[in-house]
Amino acid sequence: MGMVGRDIDDLPKNAANYTALTPLWFVERAATVHPNRKSVVHGSLHYTWLQTYHRCRRLASALNKHSFGLGTTVAIIAPNVPAMYEAHFGVPMSGAVLNTVNIRLNAPTIAFLVGHSSSSVVMVDQEYFPLAEKALKIAEEKSEGKFEPPLLIVIADESCDPQGLKYALARGAIEYENFLEAGDPEFAWRPPEDEWQSIALGYTSGTTSSPKGVVLHHRGAYLMSLSGALIWGMNEGAVYLWTLPMFHCNGWCYTWTLAALCGTNICLRQVTAKGVYSAISKYGVTHFCAAPVVLNTIVNAPQEDTIQPLPHVVHVMTAGAAPPPPVLFEMSQRGFRVTHTYGLSETYGPSTVCAWKPEWDSLPPITQAHLNARQGVRYICMEGLDVTDPKTMQPVPADGKTMGEIVMRGNAVMKGYLKNPKVNEEVFANGWFHTGDLAVKHPDNYIEIKDRSKDIIISGGENISSLEVENYMYLHPAVLEASVVARPDERWGESPCAFVTLKAGVDKSDERKLAEEIINFCRSKMPAYWVPKSIIFGPLPKTATGKIQKHVLRSKAKEMGPVKMSKL
Amino acid sequence: MGMVGRDIDDLPKNAANYTALTPLWFVERAATVHPNRKSVVHGSLHYTWLQTYHRCRRLASALNKHSFGLGTTVAIIAPNVPAMYEAHFGVPMSGAVLNTVNIRLNAPTIAFLVGHSSSSVVMVDQEYFPLAEKALKIAEEKSEGKFEPPLLIVIADESCDPQGLKYALARGAIEYENFLEAGDPEFAWRPPEDEWQSIALGYTSGTTSSPKGVVLHHRGAYLMSLSGALIWGMNEGAVYLWTLPMFHCNGWCYTWTLAALCGTNICLRQVTAKGVYSAISKYGVTHFCAAPVVLNTIVNAPQEDTIQPLPHVVHVMTAGAAPPPPVLFEMSQRGFRVTHTYGLSETYGPSTVCAWKPEWDSLPPITQAHLNARQGVRYICMEGLDVTDPKTMQPVPADGKTMGEIVMRGNAVMKGYLKNPKVNEEVFANGWFHTGDLAVKHPDNYIEIKDRSKDIIISGGENISSLEVENYMYLHPAVLEASVVARPDERWGESPCAFVTLKAGVDKSDERKLAEEIINFCRSKMPAYWVPKSIIFGPLPKTATGKIQKHVLRSKAKEMGPVKMSKL
Repeated sequence: MGMVGRDIDDLPKNAANYTALTPLWFVERAATVHPNRKSVVHGSLHYTWLQTYHRCRRLASALNKHSFGLGTTVAIIAPNVPAMYEAHFGVPMSGAVLNTVNIRLNAPTIAFLVGHSSSSVVMVDQEYFPLAEKALKIAEEKSEGKFEPPLLIVIADESCDPQGLKYALARGAIEYENFLEAGDPEFAWRPPEDEWQSIALGYTSGTTSSPKGVVLHHRGAYLMSLSGALIWGMNEGAVYLWTLPMFHCNGWCYTWTLAALCGTNICLRQVTAKGVYSAISKYGVTHFCAAPVVLNTIVNAPQEDTIQPLPHVVHVMTAGAAPPPPVLFEMSQRGFRVTHTYGLSETYGPSTVCAWKPEWDSLPPITQAHLNARQGVRYICMEGLDVTDPKTMQPVPADGKTMGEIVMRGNAVMKGYLKNPKVNEEVFANGWFHTGDLAVKHPDNYIEIKDRSKDIIISGGENISSLEVENYMYLHPAVLEASVVARPDERWGESPCAFVTLKAGVDKSDERKLAEEIINFCRSKMPAYWVPKSIIFGPLPKTATGKIQKHVLRSKAKEMGPVKMSKL
Repeated sequence: MGMVGRDIDDLPKNAANYTALTPLWFVERAATVHPNRKSVVHGSLHYTWLQTYHRCRRLASALNKHSFGLGTTVAIIAPNVPAMYEAHFGVPMSGAVLNTVNIRLNAPTIAFLVGHSSSSVVMVDQEYFPLAEKALKIAEEKSEGKFEPPLLIVIADESCDPQGLKYALARGAIEYENFLEAGDPEFAWRPPEDEWQSIALGYTSGTTSSPKGVVLHHRGAYLMSLSGALIWGMNEGAVYLWTLPMFHCNGWCYTWTLAALCGTNICLRQVTAKGVYSAISKYGVTHFCAAPVVLNTIVNAPQEDTIQPLPHVVHVMTAGAAPPPPVLFEMSQRGFRVTHTYGLSETYGPSTVCAWKPEWDSLPPITQAHLNARQGVRYICMEGLDVTDPKTMQPVPADGKTMGEIVMRGNAVMKGYLKNPKVNEEVFANGWFHTGDLAVKHPDNYIEIKDRSKDIIISGGENISSLEVENYMYLHPAVLEASVVARPDERWGESPCAFVTLKAGVDKSDERKLAEEIINFCRSKMPAYWVPKSIIFGPLPKTATGKIQKHVLRSKAKEMGPVKMSKL
């Protein structure tokens, strides 16, 4: 019979058997299957999936009527409110790209983002209107007369001061609901012609250099939405609490996942332990995502703000920084089931998961927490993950010791940075996406981050993982947060310097004594050269997403001058 | 700021951020994440995911060594055994297309398939070797001297007669394990360059005309695998029982899903109620798929073959024909959670699901069963589903009454039929895939099949859904199976004629009396013109997948001659 010709591949795509992958399909499906199910809840405001679908189509239609669509970028500056959710569907349905702006940025940075992204529409929550106004003013001043003011849409929120809305309207902004009114709820949106078309833009929080615009496409967003549900075991009808900002990688793509699952979105303007617990009991929240700093808040909440035991199992996904094992341990003690993932804006959010193994069930809880603090294995839609020697690009051995850089490849890697060909070339070198994070590979194939390349402390020629030092420090009963950076050291070149915030109720009167106590504690736990030589108490500088800004601490440590030979 | 150029779309694909979608990635991932977890269990034979991955790579490598790969079609004739599972990964890893052959076909049909598909390798389970041999002989005779004998690989099974294996080896077949031996367990397989590349071929069971070869691609298989898990709420580590033949749409793509979920496959050579129940208790089976005929077997099993109550919830997916509501009801009474889906070989298996609504929970069980017997709504990866007037192609109103043809479009529609451009043009007309099934659309957007176009009975100008008549007949306590077809009728043109098998224990001595009783029962339940005028007792002819062959019954009914004016 021999080799077949290629008859079997000679069957072309047609309108019946091929369409672009895009998460926009999900909301149409949710509105068909569960038209009356709650889609988005925000205080007393409750929408159904049919309503949400109509509102998204109105938004798309209204944008098109204003000549915004393919080729437009729409910026949004808003916390987790319904309009923010709707923008994730309505904006791409119009053909435009959604630029989610971190609400905790300052005006000059927002001015840069709006200009760099050429956003010609700015949707802004009423509370952030003055910030947006200031940013646009700066953008205008810098534009040397070439400034075209964007269309300004203000999103009203009943829970905010009505004066803020009045002010925005007086300044000429269109109110969001009025804008929707002009749109057609039956608008015939179409999927993109090419699934590689951009759907969203998000700027890296810039712990180091100036923000870079991460561009994501429809295909990736679709795949991540499904993958994120499967990885988490998140099923149809999930009730999801928005603790994680949607502006952060589009809420790790869970904005779109919730539509795929016909689930319910519970909005939260402000994250507090009390708010989280009360949403769990009021709405039956089954899932939420949170940076480790939020877990820390939950774990250390005063008892009157908590509900114990939980009325049902609550699944928590954490990522953004490696959570200290003691915090993971405390979460599981309180009945939360924590899934630990790791990823970057460049990978649509999480792209590795510390997949739980049934054989861990019988281990002591603290051992479990240590295993679960690892970054783990690749997501279903991330086809390649490895730890490689940065020089040779060869995989490091799976010995749990040899450090290398985490590299990834696959359909959940961004299109690239906007207008940044040089950096794109670097991060995509050798057919891999280079994360800049350092890790080891364990014999069970799970990877574990040891540090950001730049966070490694080199003391007397030895590498110290600042992360590991921090993990031990979290075990100390007085420590709420710890961040360790390199401080110049006359003898060793660098040595660890710890910045610490203390738990409520700790006697802070004698900082010197406390520092000594913590240092002694460290001595009992880790190699001598890991032990911080300096401990500084006070609040830690953080990015909008709760990441500790180590570069600020590094500058502080540098300003303190080198550790003298004689010290200690 | 105005319109952005297309900077934001001007970011090309590269090796780091794009790869073809293919389910082959799943087995690599399973072997990395859960190398020691059971992958495939067949009697005393237990494989781990690492072993399965190695075996699949060996198969691919061995095929390549024999110069089989891209452009080759590999046929497999086997029940649900490990080699069948491995072929789903190993064959496409080699670049070849897998042609799964229905084991219940006869030799001339298999001869046709092997020839039509140009299969140059035939893998065959030892029990089916004589059948394959006979088929190849027929193919040779028909080839007019142009026959190139395919490579014959025989799959040994310890549970079969050793003489069968001996015979096959004596006839020159290579034993499967020996064939694997020659392959490299570290074979560096690569994803297809184009995800549109064909992965599998399956011939329609041919209830009507000659079999048509349905061609599926890597992209669709990937999407269906994930979609099938999400639709069913099937999570990581699921234990899946192979009651559904893998040769049927690649086991509705669950072959690949199980790898994505790092679950466990429990093989079953022969499906019996006892076998199903004992696998549930022995292996902790969480999920299985089955045609309605299998549900019927489970529901009507003698008590000593069952386990009641079930040790845990068992999820059952059914499709292939609309299950009679009474059978759905009985299944739920026994503790099975039945998900009802509908699809075709042309749609990778199921492509609509009767998504369960929480508000149904409080309804009477029989009402639930009726709601759940509908075909429902579109799968996540099937982007279009509608019921349209065959003439105008306009959607029918969602009134639960107006009948039309079910049409679909999206990424889970086949590439097309192999070497059949004329039929392809027909089934893909107007940008929709035409199923040939007739349905109504209910006000809640759920579709419900009323019949195959050709199964509709037209009596006195009125359409009668044979399916609805059958559903009522299943309510009669003596009826095990019922199939209703049109019989010529002097007065009405056509009238319903029922073929019935009776339950065990029913007194069959007076068929005439029984027939009258059933007809009277029907009269009490349905419009007079729906009531079957003739009832014939005996076993029903079925396809390999358990579908009742209505065309055989139609011929029988025709042979019986027209119903006379005077009758009844």
